Amino acid sequence: MKIAVDGMGGDNAPKSNVEGCVNAIKEYGVDIIITGDKEILEKEFSKYDFDKSKLEIINTTEVVTNEDKPVEAIRSKKDSSMVVALKLVKEKKADAVISAGNTGALLTGGLLVVGRIKGIDRPCLCPAIPNVKMGMTLIADGGANADCKPINLVQFAGMSNIYAKKVLGLTSPKISIANIGSEEGKGNDITKKSYDEIKKLDLNFIGNIEARDLINGVTDIIVCDGFTGNILLKSAEGVAMSVMKLIKETLLSSTKGKIGAMFIKNDMQKLKSMMDYSEYGGAPLLGVNGGVIKAHGSSDSVAIKNAINQGIKFAKGNVLEDIKSFVQTEKENKE
Amino acid sequence: MKIAVDGMGGDNAPKSNVEGCVNAIKEYGVDIIITGDKEILEKEFSKYDFDKSKLEIINTTEVVTNEDKPVEAIRSKKDSSMVVALKLVKEKKADAVISAGNTGALLTGGLLVVGRIKGIDRPCLCPAIPNVKMGMTLIADGGANADCKPINLVQFAGMSNIYAKKVLGLTSPKISIANIGSEEGKGNDITKKSYDEIKKLDLNFIGNIEARDLINGVTDIIVCDGFTGNILLKSAEGVAMSVMKLIKETLLSSTKGKIGAMFIKNDMQKLKSMMDYSEYGGAPLLGVNGGVIKAHGSSDSVAIKNAINQGIKFAKGNVLEDIKSFVQTEKENKE
Repeated sequence: MKIAVDGMGGDNAPKSNVEGCVNAIKEYGVDIIITGDKEILEKEFSKYDFDKSKLEIINTTEVVTNEDKPVEAIRSKKDSSMVVALKLVKEKKADAVISAGNTGALLTGGLLVVGRIKGIDRPCLCPAIPNVKMGMTLIADGGANADCKPINLVQFAGMSNIYAKKVLGLTSPKISIANIGSEEGKGNDITKKSYDEIKKLDLNFIGNIEARDLINGVTDIIVCDGFTGNILLKSAEGVAMSVMKLIKETLLSSTKGKIGAMFIKNDMQKLKSMMDYSEYGGAPLLGVNGGVIKAHGSSDSVAIKNAINQGIKFAKGNVLEDIKSFVQTEKENKE
Repeated sequence: MKIAVDGMGGDNAPKSNVEGCVNAIKEYGVDIIITGDKEILEKEFSKYDFDKSKLEIINTTEVVTNEDKPVEAIRSKKDSSMVVALKLVKEKKADAVISAGNTGALLTGGLLVVGRIKGIDRPCLCPAIPNVKMGMTLIADGGANADCKPINLVQFAGMSNIYAKKVLGLTSPKISIANIGSEEGKGNDITKKSYDEIKKLDLNFIGNIEARDLINGVTDIIVCDGFTGNILLKSAEGVAMSVMKLIKETLLSSTKGKIGAMFIKNDMQKLKSMMDYSEYGGAPLLGVNGGVIKAHGSSDSVAIKNAINQGIKFAKGNVLEDIKSFVQTEKENKE
């Protein structure tokens, strides 16, 4: 098992990326190919004691930054750590690739460098958000495609179902459509048409759910266009953080509150980290012809190690083959 | 000033509706026409001491329920408290109408009974959500139109701006578009096109905002299609309530937490009621040719009284005339 890691992508690169690779080698016995400035990377790796035969460093001379425009970056920075890492997957030299770099560029790179699976109209990004049942809910699509057609949502449902089974280990993931009402027939043009199509698939489809059920754990996967997915993710994040901040301010404004705050400090800290969306691993880009995992920009070494583990499970679980079978079955059903 | 009230609409009707009317008569000196079962209403009103000359009861024999299908209900239940109340506005016998009944039916009734303002393509429902700056943020559209065109968002911006000035008393409401990125040029097809058009209007347009800024008070009005508006409203509500519940559970699971909880009980109660979306008054239906205010289904007498006050301000502020001027100006600018 060989995983490619974009050594220079992310707010804490290359330090966290390197530490994450070292720990992944130790914990999973995985082979790592890391891309980036060889001199800097070698210096970082020299701090750790690990099986060096498991590591290959590929020197690259450019870095895709967060300020770069996605398409431009992928087209012009051919020798960037991101593009070179993606190529390793394209050329089957690695089983999956991890990057904590520019999200838009990675999506574009997934399409332009790795390429789509034949029959997949649009790949989707599939991040997970924490829910109150201490589990995770996948959002498919979490922001890769602002405008979608019903066929896209149908494929997002099929692909995320495979990912949830093979990587998250769910036996029968509950799949729903994000909608403005729970009854069949509710919604806008795209959700109505998608509902009819998704219902026909061999999935544990539980119908429409309203956004108020977003984090209460009634569903494992929420299918939606990428615009709606982004709105769901960002509003959940924003409201959760605002409420926590408001509680803090409210408590610190009274003596009684201050005393109470002392007692609940640890519990609140636990809760805050539970709701810290950056701790929930990487998001797979489903529908491209290789394992591509987007780790959070703010990933620390644990997040990088976890994303590498996602990449391993993605490859071991034959997610790509399953998606190809899904596309084939769908094609046959239509003929 | 005469306000029509749907006496039978809402979870707490007619009790809360009647009490709300009585208090509005006392507090604002307004004339009320209430529709519903005359016998039941008279019995309720007999409990209160108030200026009876300010009240007219119109007997109706039907009620639109929450289970009714909107179009069917409005077309078939001609003698319902809702339809008769809407007609009073249509026939200029009342200056505005309040209903806490079936939202879909009220939207349909607004269109079919009251009718659109000439030149308005689609009316929008404009609910307010609380923000962390202890203010309110309007969502236009909050759910009346699942599918929208750019012209709709442009008109939602113009109409909600007038409402925010005239009814909420803001001098220069900050208007933004709900989007997946803050930069110009971001988004889906409809937000991109709407951006270009809204920019041309004479408004305090602050550009795109991301959903994570939903409740932090950076904007007074968020313009979006009704599908997105519903997702924003419901996810904010759901996440806020889930977080509060989670905090309670977390605290009650440890002794230290239980002690802390005793100290912070009052503060948390205050916070919870601040975030109780049902306490934030009614939502106007903007773009129909009369003042139509949707009060929450769970309205108590205070909420009904507040909604009546919104109706009074709506009529006094000449919101309808201003919307007509806006439409006229837009038409001239296009010619």
